[in-house]
Amino acid sequence: MRGSFAAWIKKIQNTLCREVEKADGKEKFIEDKWVRNEGGGGITRIIRNGAVFEKGGVNISEVQGYLTSQIKEQLKVQGEQFFACGISLVLHPFNPMVPAVHANFRYFEVYDQDGQVINGWFGGGTDLTPCYLFEEDARHFHKTLKRSCDKFGADLYQQFKLQCDNYFVNHHRNGERRGIGGIFYDYMKPGERFSKEQLFEFSKSNGDAFIEAYFPIVTRTKNLPFSEKQKNWQLIRRGRYVEFNLLHDRGTLFGLKSNGRTESILMSLPLNVRFEYNYHPEPDSPEAKLLEILMNPINWI
Amino acid sequence: MRGSFAAWIKKIQNTLCREVEKADGKEKFIEDKWVRNEGGGGITRIIRNGAVFEKGGVNISEVQGYLTSQIKEQLKVQGEQFFACGISLVLHPFNPMVPAVHANFRYFEVYDQDGQVINGWFGGGTDLTPCYLFEEDARHFHKTLKRSCDKFGADLYQQFKLQCDNYFVNHHRNGERRGIGGIFYDYMKPGERFSKEQLFEFSKSNGDAFIEAYFPIVTRTKNLPFSEKQKNWQLIRRGRYVEFNLLHDRGTLFGLKSNGRTESILMSLPLNVRFEYNYHPEPDSPEAKLLEILMNPINWI
Repeated sequence: MRGSFAAWIKKIQNTLCREVEKADGKEKFIEDKWVRNEGGGGITRIIRNGAVFEKGGVNISEVQGYLTSQIKEQLKVQGEQFFACGISLVLHPFNPMVPAVHANFRYFEVYDQDGQVINGWFGGGTDLTPCYLFEEDARHFHKTLKRSCDKFGADLYQQFKLQCDNYFVNHHRNGERRGIGGIFYDYMKPGERFSKEQLFEFSKSNGDAFIEAYFPIVTRTKNLPFSEKQKNWQLIRRGRYVEFNLLHDRGTLFGLKSNGRTESILMSLPLNVRFEYNYHPEPDSPEAKLLEILMNPINWI
Repeated sequence: MRGSFAAWIKKIQNTLCREVEKADGKEKFIEDKWVRNEGGGGITRIIRNGAVFEKGGVNISEVQGYLTSQIKEQLKVQGEQFFACGISLVLHPFNPMVPAVHANFRYFEVYDQDGQVINGWFGGGTDLTPCYLFEEDARHFHKTLKRSCDKFGADLYQQFKLQCDNYFVNHHRNGERRGIGGIFYDYMKPGERFSKEQLFEFSKSNGDAFIEAYFPIVTRTKNLPFSEKQKNWQLIRRGRYVEFNLLHDRGTLFGLKSNGRTESILMSLPLNVRFEYNYHPEPDSPEAKLLEILMNPINWI
């Protein structure tokens, strides 16, 4: 599975970059390959100052090494060594009407002292972070992900939608969510319900669904006009994005603690950001309406 | 000591705000009083869009409550309840030639089941975060703090200067410091060397020294011209400031975990910030010279 998953993330990295470049219409990705001292490495691809995307990254990485006590505690696993491999995509559009998006698919293995696999699991998901809410886009995004999940089990979308709402939470802001969610799953282990091959197919299906879920929204919103006030709201929302990623995101903290490449991990942070003291949108404004949904996630299906 | 320290931080909050307003020459602080559900509260004072200071805060707070296992682990203390009281100042100037600054003075007590004091300690310090290095200003800042420390012991400045260099570290960036340091001390407990009263005097002396250390630098730099490129470097350096505060700063993480007021804690974040992928200043530039000092702190005395 290590080899198959690693080959797939290389392939889908190419596909995703092509889709982003097509949607952007102006800029191309630059590529940085890196090697990790303790084992492994990655390919980081970054797009900047595009016509649509102010900053974005589509990164793959494979890291392996010894499980430190810090990592064991964070992942709640026992073992001697680990292998982690995955793809991470983050896109921050310039226009506040175009939602930011995140997708991640990963595979993890833990080994005992003799190098035997103790445990292996899949994780992943994708979630949408708009500054302004277009309900039809939110429904399209969620419905597309549901169709992908439904092929593997009728209960999966609801479960993973809820896990997403419970994961991307700024706990220090009374439970405000980073965005309007999507799906999030972790520790999916082969067993009675799914074989390893089926879980791999599930990752691939969700990767394809991401493309279908996100890019039509970009096409629909990328030429919408916006005001300076709306741009300012985007910069403030990006502040909350930074807060979540640096305070709460397990992927970011795992990456930094396991000596990942800092620049590749922190490509997820938006370019321009504003931290205003005690900012509150006007009651009944579109900004307040978004906040209401972020505080109380709803069912989009 | 609880009462004396609380009275002093109220007094020095007023003094510091007066000094900031005088140096700014245009804007005044706004004030927000807040009450914490679990006990305590604070007075937050914020200055925004000044002639000199783009964003700044001078906050005092007193919080008390039960020690959760999370807080016990972070502070490495045992006990039933705690009391924490302190003043925090953060100033982010608009002009990249004027350094940002941070100062904090705090007093902490821990109680057993019967409400008896098990432990009490003082902490504090102040540190300077320039984007461009003016060596005479760095020397002035450090010398002024040394004079304050020397009154209490000839070894203190060196010890606390080193602790400061070892504390404000972006560990995920190969040990890059947030700024050029100052002094930092924690867990100063009354004992053989210092009485509780002497430690209180030490806090007060350092509070006064901060004023003498920082504001002459503002006066000297606030009218210096700067370019767009220099402003951009400031926004990038502010990104590192945000990374430190959200990933590593014990005060920020303690505040958020102990249900402090989020807006008061995160006033420390600068207003406008930029996270550029893999930015490196040109070799031998003033920007590279600053980085060199941040990677390898030097003795300023």
